[in-house]
Amino acid sequence: MYHSKITIILRKSILDPQGKAVELGIHSLGYTGVANVRIGKCVEMDIDANQRDEAEKISREISDKLLANPIMEDFSISLEEHKGL
Amino acid sequence: MYHSKITIILRKSILDPQGKAVELGIHSLGYTGVANVRIGKCVEMDIDANQRDEAEKISREISDKLLANPIMEDFSISLEEHKGL
Repeated sequence: MYHSKITIILRKSILDPQGKAVELGIHSLGYTGVANVRIGKCVEMDIDANQRDEAEKISREISDKLLANPIMEDFSISLEEHKGL
Repeated sequence: MYHSKITIILRKSILDPQGKAVELGIHSLGYTGVANVRIGKCVEMDIDANQRDEAEKISREISDKLLANPIMEDFSISLEEHKGL
């Protein structure tokens, strides 16, 4: 059993107005050293797989087919093994 | 300069209907070994700080004050140092 965290974020070349708005909010709290704020989605799930490779393949396929828009978004996957489940 | 990734996700005890909907979508693609899908936000930013502690403190304060709803959401922070910026 693996716990998979998939992070989906707009590509660098695409403007992120929501991130800009949050950046303004952060600056108005006084944290002026913060820049390049970008907002994305995070999808966590448990995957019933015996091998890390298999869990990674499933995560990648799900991201490609369902979760991310390949034109506008990049995704990254991080996996953690669950023992004793 | 640090790159901070803040992941904000609904607490385990709170129902996540969006996650359930995505889980149904994943199952209908044939990945029946996937469970407990939960959807959250991910906020990435560059922080101008010399020490990791300082960057972590800023990330934590921003999450507490602005990004996360402490009643319903948990957040986690991951930091990466940027060299040469």
